[in-house]
Amino acid sequence: MADINSRLEIGVTTGPIRGSRKIHVGPHRVAMREITLEPSAGEPPLRVYDPSGPYTDPEAVIDISAGLPERRAGWIRARGDVDEVASREVRPEDNGRTGPDRSGGVPAFPNVRRRVLRAKAGMNVSQMHYARAGIITPEMEYVAIRENLGRAALKEKLARDGQDWGAAIPDHVTPEFVRDEVARGRAIIPSNINHPESEPMAIGRNFLVKINANIGNSAVASDVASEVDKMVWAIRWGADTVMDLSTGRNIHDTREWIIRNAPVPIGTVPIYQALEKVNGDPVKLDWECYKDTLIEQCEQGVDYFTIHAGVRLGYIHLTANRVTGIVSRGGSIMAKWCLAHHKESFLYERFDEICDIMRKYDVSFSLGDGLRPGSIRDANDRAQFAELETLGELTKIAWDKGCQVMIEGPGHVPMHKVKVNMEKQLAECGEAPFYTLGPLTTDIAPGYDHITSAIGAAMIGWFGTAMLCYVTPKEHLGLPDRDDVKTGVITYRIAAHAADLAKGHPSARLRDDAVSRARFEFRWQDQFNLSLDPDTARRFHDETLPKDAHKVAHFCSMCGPKFCSMKITQDLREDAARMAGMAEKSREFADKGKEIYLPAAE
Amino acid sequence: MADINSRLEIGVTTGPIRGSRKIHVGPHRVAMREITLEPSAGEPPLRVYDPSGPYTDPEAVIDISAGLPERRAGWIRARGDVDEVASREVRPEDNGRTGPDRSGGVPAFPNVRRRVLRAKAGMNVSQMHYARAGIITPEMEYVAIRENLGRAALKEKLARDGQDWGAAIPDHVTPEFVRDEVARGRAIIPSNINHPESEPMAIGRNFLVKINANIGNSAVASDVASEVDKMVWAIRWGADTVMDLSTGRNIHDTREWIIRNAPVPIGTVPIYQALEKVNGDPVKLDWECYKDTLIEQCEQGVDYFTIHAGVRLGYIHLTANRVTGIVSRGGSIMAKWCLAHHKESFLYERFDEICDIMRKYDVSFSLGDGLRPGSIRDANDRAQFAELETLGELTKIAWDKGCQVMIEGPGHVPMHKVKVNMEKQLAECGEAPFYTLGPLTTDIAPGYDHITSAIGAAMIGWFGTAMLCYVTPKEHLGLPDRDDVKTGVITYRIAAHAADLAKGHPSARLRDDAVSRARFEFRWQDQFNLSLDPDTARRFHDETLPKDAHKVAHFCSMCGPKFCSMKITQDLREDAARMAGMAEKSREFADKGKEIYLPAAE
Repeated sequence: MADINSRLEIGVTTGPIRGSRKIHVGPHRVAMREITLEPSAGEPPLRVYDPSGPYTDPEAVIDISAGLPERRAGWIRARGDVDEVASREVRPEDNGRTGPDRSGGVPAFPNVRRRVLRAKAGMNVSQMHYARAGIITPEMEYVAIRENLGRAALKEKLARDGQDWGAAIPDHVTPEFVRDEVARGRAIIPSNINHPESEPMAIGRNFLVKINANIGNSAVASDVASEVDKMVWAIRWGADTVMDLSTGRNIHDTREWIIRNAPVPIGTVPIYQALEKVNGDPVKLDWECYKDTLIEQCEQGVDYFTIHAGVRLGYIHLTANRVTGIVSRGGSIMAKWCLAHHKESFLYERFDEICDIMRKYDVSFSLGDGLRPGSIRDANDRAQFAELETLGELTKIAWDKGCQVMIEGPGHVPMHKVKVNMEKQLAECGEAPFYTLGPLTTDIAPGYDHITSAIGAAMIGWFGTAMLCYVTPKEHLGLPDRDDVKTGVITYRIAAHAADLAKGHPSARLRDDAVSRARFEFRWQDQFNLSLDPDTARRFHDETLPKDAHKVAHFCSMCGPKFCSMKITQDLREDAARMAGMAEKSREFADKGKEIYLPAAE
Repeated sequence: MADINSRLEIGVTTGPIRGSRKIHVGPHRVAMREITLEPSAGEPPLRVYDPSGPYTDPEAVIDISAGLPERRAGWIRARGDVDEVASREVRPEDNGRTGPDRSGGVPAFPNVRRRVLRAKAGMNVSQMHYARAGIITPEMEYVAIRENLGRAALKEKLARDGQDWGAAIPDHVTPEFVRDEVARGRAIIPSNINHPESEPMAIGRNFLVKINANIGNSAVASDVASEVDKMVWAIRWGADTVMDLSTGRNIHDTREWIIRNAPVPIGTVPIYQALEKVNGDPVKLDWECYKDTLIEQCEQGVDYFTIHAGVRLGYIHLTANRVTGIVSRGGSIMAKWCLAHHKESFLYERFDEICDIMRKYDVSFSLGDGLRPGSIRDANDRAQFAELETLGELTKIAWDKGCQVMIEGPGHVPMHKVKVNMEKQLAECGEAPFYTLGPLTTDIAPGYDHITSAIGAAMIGWFGTAMLCYVTPKEHLGLPDRDDVKTGVITYRIAAHAADLAKGHPSARLRDDAVSRARFEFRWQDQFNLSLDPDTARRFHDETLPKDAHKVAHFCSMCGPKFCSMKITQDLREDAARMAGMAEKSREFADKGKEIYLPAAE
């Protein structure tokens, strides 16, 4: 194994984030990160949500060739509703090795499973199925503890402050609350029974806003080692799920390396691999090939599938006058198939059968928006909304089948058209979680689309979107490298957190307040460590004030020692008695008819 | 001069932005930038707003030691209401050279003026004064042409699409419209008569959203050469005004170098220099020192002054329980002065006299928000709004004196509290232009505060803020370097443009649509050149597809040649006849009772 590993040169970043330590809470050992503050703060450590998995745990032994421990295996088997069956054989075409240019590739994952889990005949193993049956699974318990960071302590301290647009965020998350949200379809816990390495997490409007990071190679660039590295790097900085959007060769093996080492849910777009199997010709796709691909990926442990079943034949002409036509890869593949055969989409027609497959493994739907707008000009057009209505129809079918569902959304939308996207999605899709790509609020800044989209993402997250798919600086230009992945993740953590704050999530403001106190008290190390990216914060500070002495200095280089406004205000506070008596004095003066003080109106 | 210049090593970036050329429109030779597209586009060049001045004009001769041509000099003198008077003598304390550590410094600007302009006794030379008198100045004419990019042509083409929250954006900007907006106080044209080098621009809710870039040295870092370079660099990428926030030594000379070379309005915070003159002790400040500083800077040509006249003695206690107290430098200086003397602010008490000085030179007020929140926790508190109410009171006084006014705003505000800031500002300050710093929508991302604040900036710009003060990645950590300045400017151009789009500004979408068409048609060079930062867009593309052949490739590295959704959609369109007939066919099929097509509901 070691030689394969070294041959692949898979190096991933391990060790704690600066200033933090990994903790595990309760009998399920729910992973969290604790940021320790300087003694002078007089504050307890701050707990933050932590999707980074064992990689940030100094006590964990990481072996990429072996994969992560199967923490959910016992829970899954204990329910007594699964069979262990021989896995589908891996075929050359699974890795795109049928054509003349398909030689070479990456080694198969060494510790691959020969047997996989599947629901017993007639059984449904989805979290939604259990939830509706009134069963609180360990996954739901895990989610409750995980989401509940600091909320119990908080209840007395902070009044709720936010505008939640009809969400129902509780003061305290109980396992029963999680069960109820999953049963209603308002949240999903993506958790394929063949991905027992994953740490349960929830995607839903009444939980913390989540973010997804896309990785994946293509025929032009990238390889498996760097994809595994990017996955670990993305979750280190806060990606809650990762989508493997690989499209080139070695697509099966790449995915195996990623899933076996992923503590977060992994999503895919199965049509990409199905297309590889028919040598890239959309016209040759058929249900059998697609079904085979679904089963292949269900057995590997993919947690959610993007399925563009809403791209119906009758909608395609609605895109004819668009500036940017169909920009979704899956959407354009299906559109081409529909037009070539002049038939309704087999994804739409076979939707029942797709549900029957997915609930055997508890793979969640991510109903794809194949007709999403690809430009500001095309936002909120009839094609987009016609598809959304169909996604609502499909949501109800999937729920009837007991499948977990989320809905994908745009894309490119100017600010004034963002809110109606959320409102229409809630109305059409019965409050199933919304999962949007940005949206980008302008098209004029390629190279900076993490920013054009963070604006839209923060807003739509505030309005109720449950998960935000990141956009990196390379969007529209090329594949993201490691630095781009980090920039995308941090940017989207900002958007998600700004949304949580604005919704009035009861624990969100704890971290802002901690940073603000650290900033005001010149606890530089605390300010760095509490930030989303301690390394960058420290480095930026060091560029102008590199000496260690400056880490305790009561000023920064922006104003210098003499002009520091925070220092001046702190000096003011030293005259605390005077400050405290100020309001009273003000009233006294006013009573005496003086006009030096103004009344402090409420 | 040449040797001084080389001794200072002032190098600035000149030459056109990639893919663009400078043009000059009409008798006033209004500067614009024209982006030429590939012949295959079949589109005319796109005109964009261009604050970069002569530096991007290959035909301009740039001599930093001589300064820019005085393009407004003739206009100013032609009005016949100014005297040329001897300028105030520069004193050592103007450059902070009175204390024991004040030796050294930068050379004085070689081409310094010995005589300056001032309104004749009893005269008011403000643009507002002329506007109210019904006079359309050349400055207003210049602004009308400048703001009007492409709008005449557009009127037929595009229906208005936006939500403007009560703004009154015209289809076409006329000089009379500009005059009327300035007369009402809804817009300002910062234009000190001693800064004839500036190209007129307007700040107001019914014009394009503007952005400001802060530069300036401090006692810890930076120097004059890099500040001039940063100013030129900031306007190259789109800064509409620049504030010189220098606080250390050489403050007078640094400003002289900047103003003489600035084609954009320059703003300052005079209290910073006044404090230097009293050796950094706020308690020693007085009206005489401040007044002397105002006159010094009026004569130099500063176009707008941040004046924290709303920090009243009676408000200071309102900050006592804040998490971050007073974070404005000017605000904390004045608070300290008020408390130490237990007196009302001399800025508030002498406000009439300040107006009398500023209208003699047409320096605009930027009424400072000295009590703005410095953290999410302190947003929208009583201290902030009490000050805003006073700024409204002062606005009316300034308008009575015929002075141009804008109002500064926060700062740190979570998304759900942004809108009320705009609404309250409009109500309290009679629609005087709002000029906000961000606001940052969360405090947890030092190192990325250009992004945390771009979210708030885009939103408040949409709601009606006229100018957005940029925030760089170094905010809270250190002084921005050249790269940070560019990142901040591009980020804020994104926010401003997203706001213009959402407001439905009639010309805003032209550029988005041009990028989208270029993207869909794989005109890579056009996509780069139309973007806010062509160099970065091209570089990112080259990282994965460096060969020149790929610049005409019908795919990018994100999906590779086979999977490219844009290519698939283009292939679909090749069957154009079929596409065109699709809607009709759909109806035919429906008529025949087939169910392959769905009705294309409106």
